[in-house]
Amino acid sequence: MVTRIAVLGAGSWGTALAAVLADRGHAVVLWGRNAAHLDELRRAHENRRYLPGRKLPPSLEPTADLESAVAGRALVVFALPAATVREVATRAIPHVSPDAILVCASKGLEENSGLTLDRVLARVAPALPIVLLSGPSFAAEVAQGLPAALVAASIDAVAAQTVQRVVASERLRIYTSDDVLGVAIAGALKNVIAIAAGCADGMGVGHNARAALITRGLHEIGRLIERLGGNPLTVAGLAGLGDLVLTCTGDLSRNRKVGLALARGESVPAILQGLGQVAEGIHTARIAHDLSVSLGVEMPITAAVAAVLAGVSTAREAVADLLARELGPERA
Amino acid sequence: MVTRIAVLGAGSWGTALAAVLADRGHAVVLWGRNAAHLDELRRAHENRRYLPGRKLPPSLEPTADLESAVAGRALVVFALPAATVREVATRAIPHVSPDAILVCASKGLEENSGLTLDRVLARVAPALPIVLLSGPSFAAEVAQGLPAALVAASIDAVAAQTVQRVVASERLRIYTSDDVLGVAIAGALKNVIAIAAGCADGMGVGHNARAALITRGLHEIGRLIERLGGNPLTVAGLAGLGDLVLTCTGDLSRNRKVGLALARGESVPAILQGLGQVAEGIHTARIAHDLSVSLGVEMPITAAVAAVLAGVSTAREAVADLLARELGPERA
Repeated sequence: MVTRIAVLGAGSWGTALAAVLADRGHAVVLWGRNAAHLDELRRAHENRRYLPGRKLPPSLEPTADLESAVAGRALVVFALPAATVREVATRAIPHVSPDAILVCASKGLEENSGLTLDRVLARVAPALPIVLLSGPSFAAEVAQGLPAALVAASIDAVAAQTVQRVVASERLRIYTSDDVLGVAIAGALKNVIAIAAGCADGMGVGHNARAALITRGLHEIGRLIERLGGNPLTVAGLAGLGDLVLTCTGDLSRNRKVGLALARGESVPAILQGLGQVAEGIHTARIAHDLSVSLGVEMPITAAVAAVLAGVSTAREAVADLLARELGPERA
Repeated sequence: MVTRIAVLGAGSWGTALAAVLADRGHAVVLWGRNAAHLDELRRAHENRRYLPGRKLPPSLEPTADLESAVAGRALVVFALPAATVREVATRAIPHVSPDAILVCASKGLEENSGLTLDRVLARVAPALPIVLLSGPSFAAEVAQGLPAALVAASIDAVAAQTVQRVVASERLRIYTSDDVLGVAIAGALKNVIAIAAGCADGMGVGHNARAALITRGLHEIGRLIERLGGNPLTVAGLAGLGDLVLTCTGDLSRNRKVGLALARGESVPAILQGLGQVAEGIHTARIAHDLSVSLGVEMPITAAVAAVLAGVSTAREAVADLLARELGPERA
């Protein structure tokens, strides 16, 4: 069955999702803010800036007109940087069909509010079902048709199953979950741990220490999820462990690159300039650290990353501090 | 405080543990079966076969005499291949001090009995406290003094804390756990998932698929642990996730190499000959698959690895089967 879908955000992930959904035979429009970029994308049948080498199916319609992009679409997929989700949603929602499902494919926490991005969408569109799509998914690999597995999380089981049916293919496996909060927090926070893992790699502390850091990182994410009322087991799933393993070990990860650069002693402004793309973990570290302090949840790795990013300590000092912490039971 | 320690097994892990314990100032004897190898080790102050490049502290005593090795030792550490734990323990225990603690640093399941190795020790020495030492620990890195974190699991909390105190250093962090079963199963089964991950890597399925495989692999290990009465959260700890991440991503892992070779279509005997060392996952896959069938626990990745190792299906067929499985909720 053909589903009419709008994908908002013509970065690498939005473009990859739009391309594979169009390949599946759905009627897909891809919206981006930059009209010149969208024109280029339409002419070249390729997103040369963010997904070079992937020819886009002819049926895929690139557009810079948000109103027409979302009108009459059964699925509206948000694949935007965390910082722009609220603004784009606020403009889009008045034109979205009242029986549409919103899909949040962005990961991160909103500045100031500290909200997960599905909650941001819920604030803007309280009447629409919202499904979070998360998990280990380098856009370039999904675009190439390599296999991947994602989780579709919603408190609305029917909406989650609809997204599962529409998106899943032989190559893209979709599991469902009802722990929206856990999936959202895990997806946002794994970027912070990826920065820490990049730091550790850059300092040459070895595979054992990196594996321990990933494990302890997931553990503190689980503590935050539990404190917020989610299921601590979610961190062991695709949106937690799966995505974290990918981010911490893949060479493609932007957040890991940030950590590698921090270990070399580069400044945050210099790192951002070098990347040319958003690394959500930089913002998430500070927001999550504030959240952990206000909730009284112990998150030493997140605190260390926030301190290094703020210039309060060096990567070397932060790693030494983490190693000097008192020992106790593994789960406490 | 100086503790008298015997480490049984002069492979890479036993030698690395013995070396760092001797560095800590403990009185350590390292036992190995092969007298000629131990002589060489004594003369060279180096285990050139299994841990080349790591000078051994002069205080470390290599020996091939099991009886004198264990007599009067407060800690007896088993760092042996799974297949030899029972035989060596049976010979050693009559000479072990009645107030000694046994430390199981081997990972795997026993052939025929299907027992975890701590249970094998418990059968041989029912009166002694047993502590499992597990977690992400490439021997070469620990030997070099790179940081690592391990878990010491025991039903005897005092024994676990003793091991923590004796083994822990600034470089080697030891957490305690009371879920012996979970730690043992996770440590054994991660080798099976590592073979699967090596297969996937060898077939070039990409980072996303590997991350998904690692996640789903941990998930099925958690199901087995739960069915056996352990804590499913243990798979998210150092002995589960931590060790699996290490094994699945490190180039040093023997089990991963087995998977890479299977993907190239090599036969199991040829692979074993090429390795020259034990890859526990080969045995564990078959034993764990039998266990899962008899307990009625669904373990599709373990089943696929067992089938490829038995020559019943090719790596390509196994991966295709895993991708074709029916979709459902992430936790079921």
